[in-house]
Amino acid sequence: MTVNLAFADGHEIAEVAVADPAEITFVFNTLLFCIGGFLVMWMAAGFTMLEAGLVRGKNTVVICIKNLGLFSIAGVAYYLIGYNLMYAGVDGGYIGSLSIWSSGVGNPDDLVGQGYSPASDWFFQMVFVATTASIVSGALAERILIYPFFAFILVLTAILYPISGSWQWGGGWLSEMGFSDFAGSTIVHSVGGWAALVGALVLGARKGKFNDDGTANVMPGSSIPMATLGVWILWLGWFGFNGASQLALGSYADADAVATIFANTTMAAAGGVLAPMILSRLIYGKTDIGATLNGAIAGLVSITAEPLTPSIFQAIIIGGIGGIICMFGMKLLDKLKIDDVVGAIPAHLFAGIWGTLIVPFSNGDTSYGTQIVGILAFGVFTVIGSTIVWLILKSTVGIRATDEDEEYGLDYTESGSVGLEYVSKKK
Amino acid sequence: MTVNLAFADGHEIAEVAVADPAEITFVFNTLLFCIGGFLVMWMAAGFTMLEAGLVRGKNTVVICIKNLGLFSIAGVAYYLIGYNLMYAGVDGGYIGSLSIWSSGVGNPDDLVGQGYSPASDWFFQMVFVATTASIVSGALAERILIYPFFAFILVLTAILYPISGSWQWGGGWLSEMGFSDFAGSTIVHSVGGWAALVGALVLGARKGKFNDDGTANVMPGSSIPMATLGVWILWLGWFGFNGASQLALGSYADADAVATIFANTTMAAAGGVLAPMILSRLIYGKTDIGATLNGAIAGLVSITAEPLTPSIFQAIIIGGIGGIICMFGMKLLDKLKIDDVVGAIPAHLFAGIWGTLIVPFSNGDTSYGTQIVGILAFGVFTVIGSTIVWLILKSTVGIRATDEDEEYGLDYTESGSVGLEYVSKKK
Amino acid sequence: MTVNLAFADGHEIAEVAVADPAEITFVFNTLLFCIGGFLVMWMAAGFTMLEAGLVRGKNTVVICIKNLGLFSIAGVAYYLIGYNLMYAGVDGGYIGSLSIWSSGVGNPDDLVGQGYSPASDWFFQMVFVATTASIVSGALAERILIYPFFAFILVLTAILYPISGSWQWGGGWLSEMGFSDFAGSTIVHSVGGWAALVGALVLGARKGKFNDDGTANVMPGSSIPMATLGVWILWLGWFGFNGASQLALGSYADADAVATIFANTTMAAAGGVLAPMILSRLIYGKTDIGATLNGAIAGLVSITAEPLTPSIFQAIIIGGIGGIICMFGMKLLDKLKIDDVVGAIPAHLFAGIWGTLIVPFSNGDTSYGTQIVGILAFGVFTVIGSTIVWLILKSTVGIRATDEDEEYGLDYTESGSVGLEYVSKKK
Repeated sequence: MTVNLAFADGHEIAEVAVADPAEITFVFNTLLFCIGGFLVMWMAAGFTMLEAGLVRGKNTVVICIKNLGLFSIAGVAYYLIGYNLMYAGVDGGYIGSLSIWSSGVGNPDDLVGQGYSPASDWFFQMVFVATTASIVSGALAERILIYPFFAFILVLTAILYPISGSWQWGGGWLSEMGFSDFAGSTIVHSVGGWAALVGALVLGARKGKFNDDGTANVMPGSSIPMATLGVWILWLGWFGFNGASQLALGSYADADAVATIFANTTMAAAGGVLAPMILSRLIYGKTDIGATLNGAIAGLVSITAEPLTPSIFQAIIIGGIGGIICMFGMKLLDKLKIDDVVGAIPAHLFAGIWGTLIVPFSNGDTSYGTQIVGILAFGVFTVIGSTIVWLILKSTVGIRATDEDEEYGLDYTESGSVGLEYVSKKK
Repeated sequence: MTVNLAFADGHEIAEVAVADPAEITFVFNTLLFCIGGFLVMWMAAGFTMLEAGLVRGKNTVVICIKNLGLFSIAGVAYYLIGYNLMYAGVDGGYIGSLSIWSSGVGNPDDLVGQGYSPASDWFFQMVFVATTASIVSGALAERILIYPFFAFILVLTAILYPISGSWQWGGGWLSEMGFSDFAGSTIVHSVGGWAALVGALVLGARKGKFNDDGTANVMPGSSIPMATLGVWILWLGWFGFNGASQLALGSYADADAVATIFANTTMAAAGGVLAPMILSRLIYGKTDIGATLNGAIAGLVSITAEPLTPSIFQAIIIGGIGGIICMFGMKLLDKLKIDDVVGAIPAHLFAGIWGTLIVPFSNGDTSYGTQIVGILAFGVFTVIGSTIVWLILKSTVGIRATDEDEEYGLDYTESGSVGLEYVSKKK
Repeated sequence: MTVNLAFADGHEIAEVAVADPAEITFVFNTLLFCIGGFLVMWMAAGFTMLEAGLVRGKNTVVICIKNLGLFSIAGVAYYLIGYNLMYAGVDGGYIGSLSIWSSGVGNPDDLVGQGYSPASDWFFQMVFVATTASIVSGALAERILIYPFFAFILVLTAILYPISGSWQWGGGWLSEMGFSDFAGSTIVHSVGGWAALVGALVLGARKGKFNDDGTANVMPGSSIPMATLGVWILWLGWFGFNGASQLALGSYADADAVATIFANTTMAAAGGVLAPMILSRLIYGKTDIGATLNGAIAGLVSITAEPLTPSIFQAIIIGGIGGIICMFGMKLLDKLKIDDVVGAIPAHLFAGIWGTLIVPFSNGDTSYGTQIVGILAFGVFTVIGSTIVWLILKSTVGIRATDEDEEYGLDYTESGSVGLEYVSKKK
């Protein structure tokens, strides 16, 4: 832009070409959303790898289809309904409006004044709803039918997640109350976890998972290295998830905040790895790979509600406790005969509750009471909503494969393909 | 930079340190090329995973060698010959000049005035030619010899792609005619697809692929999860492919454009996933994983010719139709007994034609007639050029493994290694 | 910021809002560290995939645990001890100070004046020390116990790497002498390689690796495609490793340097792929996949000491020679009966020495003599330090699995899990 310098009487002194601070901020903020968005989109690959590695080879094709499909459905649903239901005109209330998202770009000055590209914001928010949907997928693997699952995802991403999300990120009642959930320990991860928990209860456990004496059988997945790759991908994607949730990059303070979030996020994951890794060895004599993998995720989920204000030391502790909660949570689900194939419920729901609850420890802007209200509000709403949808699906189209198909592997009946060559060779 | 403000008579009023707008733009544009470039480079890993997952275990080492080698050859060829043949002094014509690329950085002012770092531009263009080369690899897998394949890649990346590319991106005759291909549905993907199609015809099908009655046999690949990872990698890389093809980030308009491209690109992929996924289920009763995986790629290819001007709704439709074209294209190739191991020809060539053709639907700056001229020009040139090269290679050094080696797997004869442990154990 | 323009007598002419150049630079630099940091963090996934692909299926769980654990340990160690030991108050000397890192952010002006966010710098440096630790992991695979390995990593990342690193990057004696190692061919890669070499010597070879007649047996890994993915991940991560080691992005010169580094880095990798790929074929008649994969890494390591000043042609040659050195280095280790499971020592140590030695070829600011002093200093220190630690560990807790456990696979005894489904099925 050019700045004209002149006397009060109109004599021009100089015309200087200077960078427009507002425009530079706009570019930085938009860039942050774009980078953050592609990193969070990448988490979809992480969930796919984690889940494909933890299910048996005979169910790998279906898990891949489900992950590709759920991301795509989430995108379409959020475009047609979800985004505006979450963000348009919530104004302290309980819900936005029913309309299709559009960028609404008017004249350039308005656009620059908005501070970021609307498309970049839509993209960034869309990959978040897809993350929520991904969480549900793994818990229900190896026995749920593809299309009833997709039907649930459609409702979750078009309606359930956007409505509860509007309460906080849409500027609704919880945000006015002072609830604090920086990047979504509750709004994203617990919501996905609650939906998965209800689904697991309605769906029932895999055949052969639990014995009559109450013990659980281990059902080794197709590939631990692939599941580990999934964890690394999620870890990488989380820099976008938490870092870009600062929502701005154009000032020194925002840039410093994003960097601080990066450091805290990675160290919470480190804590989440180390605590269950060491503890499982001390207690059981063996290092529990499942607890270690999910510990990383739980550490990341735990820091997500407040990745900015903790010190690195606090981040390690918050993540570490999240990892331990997740490890014992996995055992608790086994005791309760709830079959969560990949441990999504402990990693996302239990750690998400923990992370949300502990926010006041490092951030004085909220209270434990308010945090509990928020946790309960999201929990009650998502449990009720999910239960209704799962029960309708179960009682109409049915949600579960036949015992025979489950035994043979869902890949054959659902897709007619084999996912791993050696599975094929055995038939 | 500092700005001196002074009266006409020379009296200085103030010296102000301000950011140089041109320099900030330079940094933003260069950063866009760097980020876009590393994302597109990452697509090389995507092709490797897609292809390694879709070939049988006995041919996985060779497919890895081919993918590492083709990227490296493409880089060297583009540096020594290709880049300047594509970009240096085309001036509305048909070809650039024969010379080695150099950054040609002179004094700082000239550099800043150019708007971006020449090295960043070279890097970004280089990974595009590598993408073209990658497309050829998968179609010809499991029977082509490594070094004749590399010889073809050398000619493709040093000469064929740069010459036709110069017609549009080098500022040649097609660009003067008004042809529109934003990020290369035709220039990159169709060219790779045409080269693969000619190669598949000259090379012939794998032993046992087609039966005497005209039907095709399914030859399950080593790992669908690995192939799915490949698709996710390509999807991620495509943000760089399309987004950074805006070529600028330094203004609010450019940043908004990049973000819009991100949103459209991911939603075209979503459409590309959903359409064949659902349609295959409706028609055949099973969800076709091959059509779903390639549908994502076809959706991405379809939006590549114009990722900026469509609405998100249009992007979903364009991608969805691309996915359906790809699904039926895979069946068409089977009918024609053309053996494309990974479906590269339908995903890149057929969807590339579709994407290029549909540009005028959302962008009025070009016409369907001009688009057809461009599609044909690239097609005719690449088919003729590829045919000559493939036939010379076939009639001199030979391009195909012996039947025995093909049966045993190319890994043993070409590399003396086994790619997957269980393959080894069976011998 | 706003600039007030006024006459000398105080009459204000205009108040202009302009972007603060120092703040923009701060944001750009911090962004570079953040992007570079997440790319280097991603290399941890690359090492995991490379190593999991090259060990046998029965040891894949342990290799995944080791890689997750070492990254986490490195982060904690570097936070509590390492960072300040490397960077705080070295002042031309031999060691920093013993204290916990803190961002030390004071008032905004001081922060902006520092040029980048301290948290971004810490994050970027932390992922480097994790890389050093990763290098050790692969060489010692399939026979080392998890916790003694972790004990070594703790010492390496808290003490050994930070002390020697302080000599150069902390502003110590080697940097004052004029030693040049841009992104760490020696400081990171050789140090990791030396530690791995000493470890391999103290630990001994895997059972069955070497025959009495001095020949070595090939022990095929679980998955070459997975190892290849690891190489692609490392390649991608290296853009952050080398590119962000420019440490600044806020000026046209810095942006141009980052882009030049990107181009040189990728082309050195290309040279590193092509040279051993072609040479192995010419010499042995088969293309050596191990030499090709490690050639890419060796090419990257080779250019790391000076990725900015070479021309692309020089980068290809430097990388290519690095790849050849690595290939023959792998054979040399076999001859010497040193069992390096993944070839980490040739790829990181041998190529690291080569890359450091060749710096004066393109960069006249240092001499071959100074480079040799630096190489020797890091080598002697790391060998002595590593030997002490490895020998203490060996003579106290023991570092090696029993022969029976090694035969059966470490996964069972160390983690009680199976890493790949077909391994499980065979038992």
